[in-house]
Amino acid sequence: MIQVGVNGYGTIGKRVADAVAAQPDMTLTGVAKTRPNYEAEAAIRKGYPLYAAIPERADLFHEAGIDLAGEVEDMVMTADVVVDTTPSGIGADNRDLYERYDTPAVFQGGEDADVADVSFNARSNYDLARDDDVETARVVSCNTTGLSRLLTPLIETYGVEKSRVTLVRRGGDPGQTSRGPINDILPDPVTVPSHHGPDVNTILPDVDIDTLGVKVPATLMHLHSVNVTLDASPSAEEVRELFGDEPRLFLVPEETGIDGTGKLKEFAMDTGRPRGDLWENCIWEESISMEGNDLYLFQSIHQESDVIPENIDAVRALLDWEDRGTSMATTDETLGVGLESLFDGQRQRVVPKHNGDD
Amino acid sequence: MIQVGVNGYGTIGKRVADAVAAQPDMTLTGVAKTRPNYEAEAAIRKGYPLYAAIPERADLFHEAGIDLAGEVEDMVMTADVVVDTTPSGIGADNRDLYERYDTPAVFQGGEDADVADVSFNARSNYDLARDDDVETARVVSCNTTGLSRLLTPLIETYGVEKSRVTLVRRGGDPGQTSRGPINDILPDPVTVPSHHGPDVNTILPDVDIDTLGVKVPATLMHLHSVNVTLDASPSAEEVRELFGDEPRLFLVPEETGIDGTGKLKEFAMDTGRPRGDLWENCIWEESISMEGNDLYLFQSIHQESDVIPENIDAVRALLDWEDRGTSMATTDETLGVGLESLFDGQRQRVVPKHNGDD
Repeated sequence: MIQVGVNGYGTIGKRVADAVAAQPDMTLTGVAKTRPNYEAEAAIRKGYPLYAAIPERADLFHEAGIDLAGEVEDMVMTADVVVDTTPSGIGADNRDLYERYDTPAVFQGGEDADVADVSFNARSNYDLARDDDVETARVVSCNTTGLSRLLTPLIETYGVEKSRVTLVRRGGDPGQTSRGPINDILPDPVTVPSHHGPDVNTILPDVDIDTLGVKVPATLMHLHSVNVTLDASPSAEEVRELFGDEPRLFLVPEETGIDGTGKLKEFAMDTGRPRGDLWENCIWEESISMEGNDLYLFQSIHQESDVIPENIDAVRALLDWEDRGTSMATTDETLGVGLESLFDGQRQRVVPKHNGDD
Repeated sequence: MIQVGVNGYGTIGKRVADAVAAQPDMTLTGVAKTRPNYEAEAAIRKGYPLYAAIPERADLFHEAGIDLAGEVEDMVMTADVVVDTTPSGIGADNRDLYERYDTPAVFQGGEDADVADVSFNARSNYDLARDDDVETARVVSCNTTGLSRLLTPLIETYGVEKSRVTLVRRGGDPGQTSRGPINDILPDPVTVPSHHGPDVNTILPDVDIDTLGVKVPATLMHLHSVNVTLDASPSAEEVRELFGDEPRLFLVPEETGIDGTGKLKEFAMDTGRPRGDLWENCIWEESISMEGNDLYLFQSIHQESDVIPENIDAVRALLDWEDRGTSMATTDETLGVGLESLFDGQRQRVVPKHNGDD
């Protein structure tokens, strides 16, 4: 069993902890938090050992009546690997701590690429992280994860001449009440390309990709307007079939009447997904179109959850615990990744474990 | 003097009426309305003769204490040209009325292209509408107008191999209180291409353009994420200079701190623009980028007003009253089109006439 510690217990951390707890080959050492807020209470109710991320603040937990298993250093010492889910920039500050105990670490996409030995996407470059010299991996951001998953099968099957993507980004997550915009559409960044293209190149160094970012008053998911000029001209149907073989690409069926991110999330909650998470790229099947060599499509990306399966696979890759196929299949099966089956008249493959209290 | 009647007095009609009233070579015959609502009151206060668009409803105006100059048929009979600004689809129903009195007519972009002899954009194809055989013109939609203005100088100067545009569209106008979405990002239409590309081809038949539409919870303006693969590779600076010579393209200067559609509209209102209108394409200067032959930029389009100068030019073109250059210059000068001068330490060229009561 792999002992996994999770440093940080916010949007990503709480999801990674649940996913670790669901794996047959992993044990959750515990989670480290800075503050005894409602999320700390939820961790305790789930029975997750709680560590103080900032030792000086341990008293705050005691005052709130929350028992600590120790300080973050204890967790790092015990764990075989730490998944760092602290806010952007803090991960880099934590690197010394992990190195001190020779604990391999998985960082998140908010960190600069040089925070880790490799940038990671399971479908695209799993084996890089298995190398003996690789001790740390950075799971790229939600948007880069979504683009890497999409481009990799296209590169392998047809070759990609050039990709151009406009990312219509949610202004903030549902809980980020201080973010905007309200009733506005902002070029963000106003300069071209946005950082997303170069970030994709940390995973797929050879792909020619230009990205433009826009920010809008929505919180549920991002939406990518994608153009990929292929080296071939398959039919739209062939591209749909190619994507249909990828468990982490969900082709939203036309007949569902799902017309945007609101209904997608509603659908996810109706299926019993924990927190209404959508781990898959959600690609509107009807939107997949070919004009000559130009592929066009829309995909929505759930910013809070699409990187969760990738974090689980990164743990196994870093420890060279399983090969790519085995790891991805285990992750997908335990979490319940793969929505296609719902539309074949079958039940969802696995109903994820969760206690519904958050 | 050209006698111009305006049939319809909503978002576009009231603006066209004001613009007609401001022209040195035009007289506003009057405006036709279906209902005696707050907009009818405003027309009366401005001294615009009011005609009943639906004769059976004339009594409603009398009951509301509003004096009518007659019925819409009287206006069509008197006018040299009618600008039809009725809701989408109604324009086609009105065509018989205009033909009955041999009155040339300008329709709006909400109608199908076959409503009129030609689709019209002043910068792109003014002379087509001057032809003796042409009695009717359709001013294309706000988005198509914005794309035609942008592409025409690029086609003339560099040649365009292909254009790909994602239109991030406002859900509704500020007054359209029953429209959405709220907190959502919708592919709209979900199929590719959207109607915008084919509509651009009604103006620029030879340009290869693919468009994708997205709808978001904003009301102020549309935003276009534009890619144009040119037949040449000018520098970004050269493209900026090219656009700088086009009065209906406004390059939003970096130093203004205008970061989105909210500040653009606020800026327009601060300059005294009637109703905060932005008749120009608003192109973020910083966004203009070249990657090889690929031009990228963001532009915002004010859906309520960018077609107004085009309607005025269409009137002159249909009657073969002036050449393109003279008409556009007169329209721009009387309305005050052209924001560049504000940033040369000069005052706005012309402060538009308006009485501020609406």
